[in-house]
Amino acid sequence: MPQPTSVPIAPRHANTVTHYDQVVDVVIVGFGAAGTCAAYEAASAGASVLVLERTSGAGGAAALAEGIIYLGGGTSTQRGAGVTDTADAMEAYLLAACGPEVDEDKIRAYVAGSIEHHDWLVERGMEFEPTICVETQMAPNGTEGLVWSGGEDAHPFRDLATPAPRGHIARTKRSTGWLLMQTLSEAAIGAGAEVVYDTRVERLIVDGDQVVGIQATRYGEEFLVRANRGVILCAGGFIYNDEMVGRYAPELLKGTWKVGTEGDDGRGISMALALGARTKGMHAGEVSLPIIPPRRLVEGILVNGHGQRFINEDTYMGRVGQAALYANDATCFLIVDEACYEPNWMGIEAAWVCESVEELEVEMGLVEGTLAATIGLYNRHAAEGKDPLFHKAEPFVRPLVPPLGAFDLRPGVAPYAPFTLGGLSTTVDGRVHHVDGTIIEGLFAAGRTTSGVCAFGYASGLSIGDSTMFGRFAGRAAAEAKE
Amino acid sequence: MPQPTSVPIAPRHANTVTHYDQVVDVVIVGFGAAGTCAAYEAASAGASVLVLERTSGAGGAAALAEGIIYLGGGTSTQRGAGVTDTADAMEAYLLAACGPEVDEDKIRAYVAGSIEHHDWLVERGMEFEPTICVETQMAPNGTEGLVWSGGEDAHPFRDLATPAPRGHIARTKRSTGWLLMQTLSEAAIGAGAEVVYDTRVERLIVDGDQVVGIQATRYGEEFLVRANRGVILCAGGFIYNDEMVGRYAPELLKGTWKVGTEGDDGRGISMALALGARTKGMHAGEVSLPIIPPRRLVEGILVNGHGQRFINEDTYMGRVGQAALYANDATCFLIVDEACYEPNWMGIEAAWVCESVEELEVEMGLVEGTLAATIGLYNRHAAEGKDPLFHKAEPFVRPLVPPLGAFDLRPGVAPYAPFTLGGLSTTVDGRVHHVDGTIIEGLFAAGRTTSGVCAFGYASGLSIGDSTMFGRFAGRAAAEAKE
Repeated sequence: MPQPTSVPIAPRHANTVTHYDQVVDVVIVGFGAAGTCAAYEAASAGASVLVLERTSGAGGAAALAEGIIYLGGGTSTQRGAGVTDTADAMEAYLLAACGPEVDEDKIRAYVAGSIEHHDWLVERGMEFEPTICVETQMAPNGTEGLVWSGGEDAHPFRDLATPAPRGHIARTKRSTGWLLMQTLSEAAIGAGAEVVYDTRVERLIVDGDQVVGIQATRYGEEFLVRANRGVILCAGGFIYNDEMVGRYAPELLKGTWKVGTEGDDGRGISMALALGARTKGMHAGEVSLPIIPPRRLVEGILVNGHGQRFINEDTYMGRVGQAALYANDATCFLIVDEACYEPNWMGIEAAWVCESVEELEVEMGLVEGTLAATIGLYNRHAAEGKDPLFHKAEPFVRPLVPPLGAFDLRPGVAPYAPFTLGGLSTTVDGRVHHVDGTIIEGLFAAGRTTSGVCAFGYASGLSIGDSTMFGRFAGRAAAEAKE
Repeated sequence: MPQPTSVPIAPRHANTVTHYDQVVDVVIVGFGAAGTCAAYEAASAGASVLVLERTSGAGGAAALAEGIIYLGGGTSTQRGAGVTDTADAMEAYLLAACGPEVDEDKIRAYVAGSIEHHDWLVERGMEFEPTICVETQMAPNGTEGLVWSGGEDAHPFRDLATPAPRGHIARTKRSTGWLLMQTLSEAAIGAGAEVVYDTRVERLIVDGDQVVGIQATRYGEEFLVRANRGVILCAGGFIYNDEMVGRYAPELLKGTWKVGTEGDDGRGISMALALGARTKGMHAGEVSLPIIPPRRLVEGILVNGHGQRFINEDTYMGRVGQAALYANDATCFLIVDEACYEPNWMGIEAAWVCESVEELEVEMGLVEGTLAATIGLYNRHAAEGKDPLFHKAEPFVRPLVPPLGAFDLRPGVAPYAPFTLGGLSTTVDGRVHHVDGTIIEGLFAAGRTTSGVCAFGYASGLSIGDSTMFGRFAGRAAAEAKE
């Protein structure tokens, strides 16, 4: 679905429009995690709502995702599972994990709204079993409803805030993401939102400085909609637009498994930029580099192309990916011994297996002595059950004993799964900032079209989490906006 | 000179202007490296030119800089010094050093224009002595006119392109930057450009989609200028605007010595963003962390907070700073022995001096065994005169012999000197791109208001180099633009 370059992105002036095909209170661009929630709330508040979706169905990127939803502070699911969590602990974690330069207002609003949002999802039909998955970071194979999805129980976060599992997962034979989008799209339509598919929104219509509608293309025909109260951009990020990624976040071009859909081409962001919208963190990207399951693999050590460790192996896979990609030239290996070896790990076999460290570093093409120095130092402290250098948790720390194997975690072999975190700068209720710091009247945005809770750091479940919650806020705010 | 927040950045519509205080062909915003050169060329081409400068004098950031100008491919100064350089070698170096995701058109134009630009500077009055400074990267204490200013002679660049010194320095008792700006501002005025100081340009004036003038404030009064052919933004970068740095390039907030002037508040960029201008690499920043002179200090080793080496010590100080800041949490130490020790290095004394490595790592607060492992490995290879891990050049490689000293190179102690490299996306001749990829009619930009030759990587002299050369191109293009 390549984007036609012939249609201008610059706003169209209302005085060039003689007839609107439809007139509603609120227009929503995109029917994914943010769009469905915005549509539900706007329609529930009594507004007439038209959703324009480019593809032939609901869901966006969220429907393709595992669908973990990051919520906490003591949700009923957490309490049912015996988890003690507080808003303070959740806030402290997010402030540390999502920076640098987080939007503190968004994080506070997200924490404050977490329990209500959880219950709203449950009321819509999502079921989260009050049990905790033993494996971390990934959706469980079983029916457990909670997962440690952000490395809360590992350094550095375990030392900053009381850890709790906050990734909520639903019982479903397909992914939680699929179920969530089924549920939310039905909820939005049930609340009275009208949805038009196969319709590509191309540009905004403005009257003076105010957004008053959109111009779309539908089956090759121009389709014009007047929005009396507001337009909400819920059109995803830009990971599928290599030109934009190259200009804003070039490191992400090394990623191998793009997370998103072809609709994540940045058009929503660009339409607002053409109005002078402010952005935040356009270079930020989440890059998952999973080294689990099984979790015993974190008893091994991660080394870079210099044979040096660079992170605690038990941390969140998104932090591993970011560290590997941004700070270590996307060159990374996992060294294991027999006790933690997994012969068929995510379809990848160990690239090298050797009887000694000295042989292994030669086989891997590392400089002589590098891996031996790294493992020597690691084992010396591990013999005392400690990892003072990177603070891996003690249960995973023990000396590595030859023979040793090494997994090649470079792009092309291992999955570097990136998506963009940067986007429009918005208020908590989704109003879009102009570069001068004022609000662009009539324009709202949510989801990955915006910079949300995650300025740079990430935990699984935060993108669907903030897309759905802030999508709701934006829907409500637009419904209440002045005509 | 804090920026008043009360004046809107959004463009003013021409139909609200009943009287212009002045009508010219070309308006230039800012009288620094880019603005002086744009003014010279536009005026020389016969256009009437008005330059609006916020401060009371010419110069901008360039006047405060050492003023190295990066030019090559066989300038007469290089040839006079016996340096063999080619356009191909210069291009290969720049493509490697300025990435990732360089604007190849700009690099090719910069290389192609290098000799002519050198001669133009000489004709304006700049004198470069055809001799090479022994110390690298810094302006010489003597009168030498050429300096190795970008680590061309160190890994990885020496292996990619035939090295040559390309940093051109003028004979002057003050800095080359000061002399350059004296020279260029006189040249611009001599060519017929009118300059008005103490005048702050606040916003652009547009007629439809075309830029037709500017609104400024002068002595508290509104000052309106019509530009029949074009407005050229040469208003610097945004390192002095913490809010913008936080949103676009948060890592740079750790920098301690901002490189620029208070005029580098991003207003020029923001005025164009308000028109829907496209940006490139807004997260990119140059961060010098000099560890020389004297150069014998690179016989020591740089280690991060984990006691690990992370770069070849003989590389360009800007690469050291970027690696320290972006990839090593701005934590960095220089370990030296008696043979390369410098008691008063840039006003900084060694923070720790110890009889043994083991004592030193304890004193520094590093984890036991880390520094010993690093130095053990380094010395093992250095005994053979080699650094296979980071490829420091052989003349600087020898085993370090206790007693050892360590300089603390963390921000607050050592100078991390950042400035922004990101800005407006422009063509080679300075036309500003709209987010949709088209050109914004009537608008031009050059210098650090734009993303130039350096997408991310840097060499000393490239900012003044591309500001002056592309300033000239923009001045010429604006003078030739249709009314």
